[in-house]
Amino acid sequence: VTDQPVVVLVEPQLPENVGTAARAMLNCGLERMRLVTPRFAWPSERAAQTSSGADRVLEQASVHRSLAEATADLNRLYATSARPRDLIKPVLTPRGAASELRAACIAGDRVGVLFGPERTGLLNEDIALCDAVIAAPVNPAFASLNLAQAVLLIGWEWLMAADSTPPRILRHGTYGPAARHHLASFLARLEAELDACGFFRVAEKRPGMLDNIRGIFTRAELTDQELRTLHGIVTELVTLRVDGRPVAREPQRETD
Amino acid sequence: VTDQPVVVLVEPQLPENVGTAARAMLNCGLERMRLVTPRFAWPSERAAQTSSGADRVLEQASVHRSLAEATADLNRLYATSARPRDLIKPVLTPRGAASELRAACIAGDRVGVLFGPERTGLLNEDIALCDAVIAAPVNPAFASLNLAQAVLLIGWEWLMAADSTPPRILRHGTYGPAARHHLASFLARLEAELDACGFFRVAEKRPGMLDNIRGIFTRAELTDQELRTLHGIVTELVTLRVDGRPVAREPQRETD
Repeated sequence: VTDQPVVVLVEPQLPENVGTAARAMLNCGLERMRLVTPRFAWPSERAAQTSSGADRVLEQASVHRSLAEATADLNRLYATSARPRDLIKPVLTPRGAASELRAACIAGDRVGVLFGPERTGLLNEDIALCDAVIAAPVNPAFASLNLAQAVLLIGWEWLMAADSTPPRILRHGTYGPAARHHLASFLARLEAELDACGFFRVAEKRPGMLDNIRGIFTRAELTDQELRTLHGIVTELVTLRVDGRPVAREPQRETD
Repeated sequence: VTDQPVVVLVEPQLPENVGTAARAMLNCGLERMRLVTPRFAWPSERAAQTSSGADRVLEQASVHRSLAEATADLNRLYATSARPRDLIKPVLTPRGAASELRAACIAGDRVGVLFGPERTGLLNEDIALCDAVIAAPVNPAFASLNLAQAVLLIGWEWLMAADSTPPRILRHGTYGPAARHHLASFLARLEAELDACGFFRVAEKRPGMLDNIRGIFTRAELTDQELRTLHGIVTELVTLRVDGRPVAREPQRETD
């Protein structure tokens, strides 16, 4: 399978970062991890714990003695780096990199994204052999990302580069939004009840107040079930009660 | 200051998640954290350690006894949630939410983004009082994000919503890309040297091979300094040596 980038962690120091990185990778659908000389015993129980169920990524991870060995079969390499280096090298944002990674994978390239050790990052001599550098334009006064967080940003942008989720939807569960005539029917009834109880004290303010009230209930994007709930609320509120028990009255109602 | 959203962590269980969340916040320029009844002693040494220098965010964080208290002064609330709920509520991607958060902050709204406890997430009764839900469209087979990772995604998209970093630049250090006539001069010299040494054995292939060679050096987007380095390489390669010492020859050279 050559349809997704390989995540290469170079000399990671903390097993929990590798575990959390594995979790972030699987969150983003990335499953191929390679490790270059991790600074702790491998396999690692601590890494497995912190992966929170992404064990598969860790179990499939390969361990290598050098970066050259870990990337020997790849034909496109991206280095992640927090600091600007003096290297003359294309620098991509994670978002810019993600569209390149997608294009490369679609073209059948075998792509690797390199992450350096927590404290030092990648060596210049390693970056020099990469096609491009990925640098996240984060807060320049506090730019150092946790290793797993850096992996997440790349994974997230990789995911988003092919995502078509609408930026905003109104989730309606089993009910869709009400037909406009049901909303109109409720608003007409409410208007009639408000007229009946004398809510509109100043006649010339009535049209503007009605528009505001219509705005409230229109903005809520109500479902049919919610309109039924609101009808029920109005019904109960207009019911005359004596000692807590409803008594007859003649409300001016529209039909439901 | 009302120009950035408040991050509200509801009953966080692990101090390291709060520390890493603080680090992720500061990476993204977010500095306002509020905690609702954390499940560990506060302030926390472990949180401070894992914040890797974002102590300021932790020191300024306020602790509250209830979500209502923590959000009392805010006028816009977003709930983060991994799982779809039965609630009828706008659902935003982090990217969709980020543009709303930016617009709300520009409008002077006091905005909060809520994150639930690690194990359970936010309660439905808490989400019901929020204006919208933010759900990251991650791998549906492995959708649970680490708390600090979820905070990072929101912070990252918040940052990116106002970022204008070009998706790809070629970093040239102190040297800009070479003027085309310097590149042309190098290519002409290389061509002359290759003719002199008999590189083009088949005359009819010469034009196509030359185009390929031009492509190699043009694609590299060379600086003037790099062109000087390449001239130097050619000079050394064409120098006749006897016992390792250069001897006179008459190379066909263009001027540098």
